[in-house]
Amino acid sequence: MRGTVMHAAGDVRIENVPDPAIQEPTDAVIRVTRACICGSDLWPYQSLIPADGARVMGHEAIGVVEDVGADVRTLHAGDVVVMPFAFSDGTCMFCEQGLQTACVHGGFFGNPDVPGAQSEAVRVPRADGTLYVLPVGEDDALMPSLLTLSDVMGTGHHAAVVAGVGPGSRVAVVGDGAVGLCGVIAAKRLGAEQIVIMGRHADRIALAREFGATDAVSERGPEAVERVHELTDGYGVDAVLECVGLDQSMQTAIEIARPGGAVGRVGVPQHETMPAAMPSFFKNVTIGGGPAPVRAYIDELLPEVLEGRIEPGRVFDRTVDLDGVPDGYRAMNDRESIKVLVKP
Amino acid sequence: MRGTVMHAAGDVRIENVPDPAIQEPTDAVIRVTRACICGSDLWPYQSLIPADGARVMGHEAIGVVEDVGADVRTLHAGDVVVMPFAFSDGTCMFCEQGLQTACVHGGFFGNPDVPGAQSEAVRVPRADGTLYVLPVGEDDALMPSLLTLSDVMGTGHHAAVVAGVGPGSRVAVVGDGAVGLCGVIAAKRLGAEQIVIMGRHADRIALAREFGATDAVSERGPEAVERVHELTDGYGVDAVLECVGLDQSMQTAIEIARPGGAVGRVGVPQHETMPAAMPSFFKNVTIGGGPAPVRAYIDELLPEVLEGRIEPGRVFDRTVDLDGVPDGYRAMNDRESIKVLVKP
Repeated sequence: MRGTVMHAAGDVRIENVPDPAIQEPTDAVIRVTRACICGSDLWPYQSLIPADGARVMGHEAIGVVEDVGADVRTLHAGDVVVMPFAFSDGTCMFCEQGLQTACVHGGFFGNPDVPGAQSEAVRVPRADGTLYVLPVGEDDALMPSLLTLSDVMGTGHHAAVVAGVGPGSRVAVVGDGAVGLCGVIAAKRLGAEQIVIMGRHADRIALAREFGATDAVSERGPEAVERVHELTDGYGVDAVLECVGLDQSMQTAIEIARPGGAVGRVGVPQHETMPAAMPSFFKNVTIGGGPAPVRAYIDELLPEVLEGRIEPGRVFDRTVDLDGVPDGYRAMNDRESIKVLVKP
Repeated sequence: MRGTVMHAAGDVRIENVPDPAIQEPTDAVIRVTRACICGSDLWPYQSLIPADGARVMGHEAIGVVEDVGADVRTLHAGDVVVMPFAFSDGTCMFCEQGLQTACVHGGFFGNPDVPGAQSEAVRVPRADGTLYVLPVGEDDALMPSLLTLSDVMGTGHHAAVVAGVGPGSRVAVVGDGAVGLCGVIAAKRLGAEQIVIMGRHADRIALAREFGATDAVSERGPEAVERVHELTDGYGVDAVLECVGLDQSMQTAIEIARPGGAVGRVGVPQHETMPAAMPSFFKNVTIGGGPAPVRAYIDELLPEVLEGRIEPGRVFDRTVDLDGVPDGYRAMNDRESIKVLVKP
C-alpha cells in the first residue's frame, strides 16, 4: 500500500510500504478514510536526521475496520472508528482511571513497530481499548470535526481540564495552532468568561474569536505578559493552556498565571527545563499536563460534535490526497495552513 | 530590646535592636513568648554576604498582644496569638480564596521593613488578617505544637493538599526535616495508606514512623527512585511531598510520581529550573505548591492540636533562650537538631 514516509527533515515522500496485517490477536487493521498532519509532526519535519531512521508518519485517523485479531471482542469489519493518537488496552489501572496515555500495554503510532496512519491502512494494537466506534457513515459531513477527537480537540480539552477551567474562569491560550484553537473551544464549553488567545496569525485569531476568544494578544515574551496583566486587572489569568511546547511559551504561560492559578500544558516540550522558583513557586502556580488521554474524552466530546455544539473541524483549512501530503507538511510548516486533512 | 541579627553566613548575634512600635493603624505589637528557627533560615545562614545587609531573623512565633493600631478590630492587649510566617490583610481576593501568601497587601517577616520574631517582641502588619487568637494561656503545655501552626505544620499540610493526598493514597515525603515530618502527619490524617519517608537521619526517620510513615528510603538519586518503585508495584506514588527545595530532590520527586500523580512542593527552591519533558510531561505529573497559606489552615489544624490528635511539636528537640539562638542555628545546620524552639 501507499504511505507517508519521512526520511529526514523536510524530506517527506509517498512510497510503497508493507501492507498492515494482524500481528497480535488484539490487533485490528483499518482502512484509513481520513487522516491529518499534526503540529507535532512538524518537530521531526524540522529536525529529523537520516540516522534516526525513516518513519511511516501519522497518528490521527478515522477509518473502517477491515480485519480484527482473534481476541478482539467489540469491533467488526465495516465499523467506522476513530483512532486516538495513542493505543491503549482499556483495562489497566491507568486506563481505568482515564489516563490511557499511560497504559501499561500502550504506545504511540508512527514508529518502526507501529507504522503511522497517513497511509491507506494502519494496524491498530489493542484495538478493543483503542478504537471508538462512530455512529455515522464513512463520508458523514461531520468527518472533519470527528477526526479532531483523535487528537487536537481532546488535547485542547485536556489542557483546559488540567488547568482547572470552569464557570467564570479567566483563561489564556498560548499558541494559535490547531490545538490552541481547540483549547479555546474547550475553555468556552467549560464555562470560561474571558478567553485570551495568544498568537500572531490573523486568520487563526479570527477563528479563535469565532470559537469564543474574547481578547487577542499578538506580543511575545515580557510584552505579552504585560498585555495579559493589563487585560486581567493586573493579576493574570486563572488558567493557562500551553499549546506550543517551547521554552519561551512555557515561561510566558507561568508568568501570566495569577497567584494560585494553573498551567495545563499539552505542547510537546522541545525544552529540557522550566522555571522552578520565580514565579511558579512563589505564586503557587500549578503546572500539569502531558499527552492527552483523548480516548477518555470521546464520551464527553462526541455528542457535542454530533449535535453541532462544537465545530473543531473548522481548524482544517486544506484537504489533500496522499500525493498532496508532502506539500501539506510544507504548508503547515510555512504557516500557510493551520491543519491539513488527508483523504488517502 | 534584644533580637537575633544575621550579619553574614554563619554569623548570627544577639544584639540590641529598635523596640517595635505601631507604624500603621493596622499594626499590632506582640511580646514574643515562643519563636523558632526554620530550615529556610539555614539558606542565608549558609550563603548571606555582608553586602546583602544584616537581618533581624525569625518568621514563626506565638506571643501576647501588647499594643494595637487604631484600625485593629479583632485583637486586644493580652490576647495570645499565633503569627503565621507571612502577613496578610485577610480581605483581598487572594486571602478570600485562602491563598494568604499572595495577599496584595501582604509580605514576609525578617527584612529591613518588617524585622523578624526571634526577638523579645515583633511588629505585625495587617494584624487583623494575620494573627490568630489562641484559646489557651501563654504557657500552655501545647505551645510547641501550636507554634508549628505558624509554619511547618501548615507547610507540610499544604504540600499534602497540593499533591492531592486523600484516603488510600500512596505518598512519598522527600526530606526528613521538620516540614517533611509534618508532611507525614498531614498525609496520615488525610488518609494516606502508604507513606514513604525519604531521608537518612535515624532519629528523624524514627519520629516519622511514629507519625505514620510506613516505609523509609535512605538512598538518594537514581537508587532512591528505584527503591520507591520497588515499594509501589513499579509505578511510583500518587503524591509526592517535596520538602527540601534542591535540584536533586525535585528531580527525585518528579521521578517517583506515578503517571497522573502529583508533586506538592514546599521546599523553597534553591535551583533555577526543573525538568520539563521526561518524565514530568510524558507521565502527566502535576507540579504545584509554593509558600503555604498557613493562616488558612489554622481553622482545620488547631482543633487537631488542641484535642491531641496530632503532635507536630515533637519536631522540636531543643529549646533555647535568646542567648542560645546562635548555637541553635549551628546545631540545626550541623543536623544535630531537627528544629530549635526559642523562648525569648
